[in-house]
Amino acid sequence: MPDILHKIDVKSSPDQTYGALTTLDGLAGWWTTTTQGNPSTGGTIAFRFGPHGGFDMKVLELEPARRVLWQVVDGPEEWLGTKISFELRRDGDFTGVLFKHAGWKEPVEFMHHCSTKWATYLLSMKSMLETGQGRPYPDDLHISSRGD
Amino acid sequence: MPDILHKIDVKSSPDQTYGALTTLDGLAGWWTTTTQGNPSTGGTIAFRFGPHGGFDMKVLELEPARRVLWQVVDGPEEWLGTKISFELRRDGDFTGVLFKHAGWKEPVEFMHHCSTKWATYLLSMKSMLETGQGRPYPDDLHISSRGD
Repeated sequence: MPDILHKIDVKSSPDQTYGALTTLDGLAGWWTTTTQGNPSTGGTIAFRFGPHGGFDMKVLELEPARRVLWQVVDGPEEWLGTKISFELRRDGDFTGVLFKHAGWKEPVEFMHHCSTKWATYLLSMKSMLETGQGRPYPDDLHISSRGD
Repeated sequence: MPDILHKIDVKSSPDQTYGALTTLDGLAGWWTTTTQGNPSTGGTIAFRFGPHGGFDMKVLELEPARRVLWQVVDGPEEWLGTKISFELRRDGDFTGVLFKHAGWKEPVEFMHHCSTKWATYLLSMKSMLETGQGRPYPDDLHISSRGD
């Protein structure tokens, strides 16, 4: 099964980077300002993107400053059941973030779009942690003719 | 075998987008200013990135305003023999660009980095075609602790 893979190195500590992935304020600062829910293990976080829909993620695993694993429990059919992980690793003054969105059934065109869109959101997270200013929805970078 | 997949929609015609992928000036405007070689079918194009190395691509297939296929004939070991394709498709005022970097043997960490880096270069191509200004090397967006 094809996966979406990314890596960015962020000039911040593993603790701070983990906070961007595991608090509502952190997530709202780089992915979508609408982030709501319970970001603890077993909780569900709702990410919404206005007319473009959204996702509900169940938090499966949290390992402080090391690892975050979510599973999609509501959202587009292609996303249902897929898993999203972030592995963090200290690298001098940086934290390396290895990202994987796994479990896609087929490499459909929507998967191509989501791969590029994930890159823009990871760049938004890097910017938020390094400069204090991310580009979460609705200020996200648009890459498609649909305006998302 | 895992692939890197991306999609961007560019507000330009398929002909103009094809030009960005098949002329030295076009490629130098979004990927690396050092682009040299022969971008015709059967030719080899050399892309260099200063201290970060580079790639030689053999042009395997060109279908005007539709499709470009390269194969890596020199570069990092993980890239040797891999194939890179761009499929173009008109979408109203936009051209959809489906990108695939196929043939990776393993989903190594370097593949994660290259996936994100390809996204930044595709955004650079979109910017070049829509605004006249891309971000080719050495003005590329840095995503790693190594400065690439």
